[in-house]
Amino acid sequence: MQREIQIYNTLSRTKERFEPLNPPFVGLYVCGPTVYGDAHLGHARPAITFDLVFRYLSHLGYKVRYVRNITDVGHLENDADEGEDKIARKARLEQLEPMEVVQYFTDRYHLNMAQLNVKSPSIEPRASGHIIEQIEMVREILKAGMGYEVNGSVYFDVEAYNRGHRYGKLSGRVLDDLLANTRALEGQDEKRNPFDFALWKKAQPEHIMRWPSPWSEGFPGWHLECSAMSNRYLGDLFDIHGGGMDLLFPHHEAEIAQSCTVHGKDPVKYWMHNNMITIEGQKMGKSLGNFITLNEFFNGAHVRLEKAFSPMTIRFFILQAHYRSTLDFSNEALMAAEKGLERLMAGRKVLEQLKPGSESTFDVAGLQAKCYAAMDDDFNSPIAIAHLFDAVRIINSIKDGKGSLTATDLHGLREWVESFVVDILGLKEEVGGSESSLMSDVVGLLIRLRAEAKARKDFQTADEIRDELGKVGIVLKDTRDGVEWQISGKDI
Amino acid sequence: MQREIQIYNTLSRTKERFEPLNPPFVGLYVCGPTVYGDAHLGHARPAITFDLVFRYLSHLGYKVRYVRNITDVGHLENDADEGEDKIARKARLEQLEPMEVVQYFTDRYHLNMAQLNVKSPSIEPRASGHIIEQIEMVREILKAGMGYEVNGSVYFDVEAYNRGHRYGKLSGRVLDDLLANTRALEGQDEKRNPFDFALWKKAQPEHIMRWPSPWSEGFPGWHLECSAMSNRYLGDLFDIHGGGMDLLFPHHEAEIAQSCTVHGKDPVKYWMHNNMITIEGQKMGKSLGNFITLNEFFNGAHVRLEKAFSPMTIRFFILQAHYRSTLDFSNEALMAAEKGLERLMAGRKVLEQLKPGSESTFDVAGLQAKCYAAMDDDFNSPIAIAHLFDAVRIINSIKDGKGSLTATDLHGLREWVESFVVDILGLKEEVGGSESSLMSDVVGLLIRLRAEAKARKDFQTADEIRDELGKVGIVLKDTRDGVEWQISGKDI
Repeated sequence: MQREIQIYNTLSRTKERFEPLNPPFVGLYVCGPTVYGDAHLGHARPAITFDLVFRYLSHLGYKVRYVRNITDVGHLENDADEGEDKIARKARLEQLEPMEVVQYFTDRYHLNMAQLNVKSPSIEPRASGHIIEQIEMVREILKAGMGYEVNGSVYFDVEAYNRGHRYGKLSGRVLDDLLANTRALEGQDEKRNPFDFALWKKAQPEHIMRWPSPWSEGFPGWHLECSAMSNRYLGDLFDIHGGGMDLLFPHHEAEIAQSCTVHGKDPVKYWMHNNMITIEGQKMGKSLGNFITLNEFFNGAHVRLEKAFSPMTIRFFILQAHYRSTLDFSNEALMAAEKGLERLMAGRKVLEQLKPGSESTFDVAGLQAKCYAAMDDDFNSPIAIAHLFDAVRIINSIKDGKGSLTATDLHGLREWVESFVVDILGLKEEVGGSESSLMSDVVGLLIRLRAEAKARKDFQTADEIRDELGKVGIVLKDTRDGVEWQISGKDI
Repeated sequence: MQREIQIYNTLSRTKERFEPLNPPFVGLYVCGPTVYGDAHLGHARPAITFDLVFRYLSHLGYKVRYVRNITDVGHLENDADEGEDKIARKARLEQLEPMEVVQYFTDRYHLNMAQLNVKSPSIEPRASGHIIEQIEMVREILKAGMGYEVNGSVYFDVEAYNRGHRYGKLSGRVLDDLLANTRALEGQDEKRNPFDFALWKKAQPEHIMRWPSPWSEGFPGWHLECSAMSNRYLGDLFDIHGGGMDLLFPHHEAEIAQSCTVHGKDPVKYWMHNNMITIEGQKMGKSLGNFITLNEFFNGAHVRLEKAFSPMTIRFFILQAHYRSTLDFSNEALMAAEKGLERLMAGRKVLEQLKPGSESTFDVAGLQAKCYAAMDDDFNSPIAIAHLFDAVRIINSIKDGKGSLTATDLHGLREWVESFVVDILGLKEEVGGSESSLMSDVVGLLIRLRAEAKARKDFQTADEIRDELGKVGIVLKDTRDGVEWQISGKDI
């Protein structure tokens, strides 16, 4: 934690030195998925971006409480053709139940995240689990005179708020421009201004998810949940709020307005936004036919894909761009990422086999320092990865006899590469791996322990090791050349 | 769905013909885990029992909405030594956050369930996500005169309820006996009668999880959540309520009383209870040293275990007993289950290779009918499995040239065996196969040796084991529930 980290803060539009409010604790909130559909690249990018932040800060020793919500208060409606009467006559079990849809897509999202090796957040709160907190906030906003009720719905009064605060400070938008450029849309006539947003919506008859409130049976507005949940788990002021750039306005702007109104201060010290993803230069959209889910990437089942791409390839591809750059997906780019990942992982394996030399002909410590420096500079993973590729070149040179490292430097190289590849970048071997060689290592350790036990005349332990291994089918044989072992009935 | 299923209904103490209220829909509610600790066999048995019910009914064509809750409204308290003032001065992030504990154990529970091939329920609601519904129920119970408030807490008035209903109808207990056999305990003095139970508890200062209510800042009583959530997702009256026998009284009895009071009718048509588990004849308990978590079974890291047992071995072992029988775990019994499972899975593989003959010398259809009949008879999985072993004998006979099946019968046999093994019993080939389980055994042995070394204060050996395992990429983690291991960068 002695390292100085710079974070680009959307609020100040500059890189700022990261100084947590209560070190070693760090509060991190990231807007999670709306679970009414399968996850796609637009979900993978923020998940992997802030997984990297979570992993790097944890690696440095910070105690990070990472909160990533599930938006499950959806807008699922009963089939409009049926009419209210017909729906009322149906048994509960025959009716569409939003929570069943929520569960289905939440489970699939979790599976996708596990495939991408994205760590579980510390807390994954659901919007539906925090209705009481959201109602409390609406009450406070009304009390502060920053909201108004119309027909059982409550809206945030942006103009009133803007008199004492600057609505638009995060996104850089100016209220007068907003006013000039928007027009009242049909069905929005309850709002005083088109840029006002709902805090509480009265449920229409066809609306299934609803809760009692002082204003109506209804449901909270979408922006409210993140204010309520970040406050509950991280407090009035916390360190980092992350999310995709598409959420900057109005979602995050609204979060600031709500929290400032209720808690009297800006809720977040550092706002971080990952940039957007394009598919072969185009925006991703269902109508454009380039909307590819993660599952489709993993199994290749989309017409735009030339082949399947493994979760680790997708992860590596995303990490090979800085999170604030746009990222364009194409088959060619993914195939290049796949090759690069293979090269990196192969280098790691060669590294395991290298033997130390009498002198170091490469500056490992210098390279390692540059790799950390890249991460310190606003989590610049592509630069860090470039330095890892430099390491792979060194590894291959040593293998080819073109240089050497001392035992100390070799140990340092191994520690650094393992930390970055496994812990920080979160990359893992995708196929079964070298289980057999691991088994050799582990049984070898038992054989050594048995020899040590014998040497100190602890025959009980020595026999225990032999007997217990025998029970699970591993036979030890004392030979002239030492102890050999075998899985009974099987040569390995 | 043409099949006639018999279910033993705890309410009537007889097997009854299963007639769903709104076929083809079936509502199934099962009490899920309290997520403040690792899952053990007491969690595995109900999960697997009702997974079997869920799978079999779905296999027959029923549309089952399976709701299994997460009890996350726990009784975690701030460290009492600290005092309220000191806690109030701490930043939010420095304070213990129950939801972080909840998330940790929920994730681990989900991993265990996935390992056991237990399907996700249709909806997995959390108690904390349904506080509003629970407050509504308390209000209704008070309105009906079946509850009373004392100092901000609300209790269910069992005597008042018993005047118009029979409290004890499910468990067979009689109120007068209860009265005679219980005595007021200290700290329960708010209750009019010792058997009254809390609907709402006022939070003490050290109590962290709390919500506003008409009576106090507090939290709902445990029995209430299942009434509220089953009602929300399955309606006033639903088909099947399941759970372990330990929940029969008072939990399920209280559920009936609450629902009857609020909705004016018994909530459940069929009550199903799985029987208890013993460990080598003893009740499982932390003080008895026989409290073995599922993770410990899977990696063998418990002193009572002679080896690791794979998730499928545990699943098969549980399915080899009828859910209403007690089940005693022992190393011998688990090893027998492991062998049996291997035999069954090997038979399946041989079946794939069999070639049809000109005539059938075995009555496959008859055997299949008996297998289904066993399941129809209160989900009698051990009998069904016995018939599958008959099938394995037939398969091996045909392989040995001692009989044959026509193409039609062979096809029928394959369909039946696949349906039962994969879809209904939920058994699967374990990835990595015997190698992984062997690895678990071997690492488990090392973990035991390390514990023994520590016990004899041989810290050098203890550290050596940890360090050497670390070198080959196996990380030992001391957790609150014992030692766990992981291949670094790989979840197992």
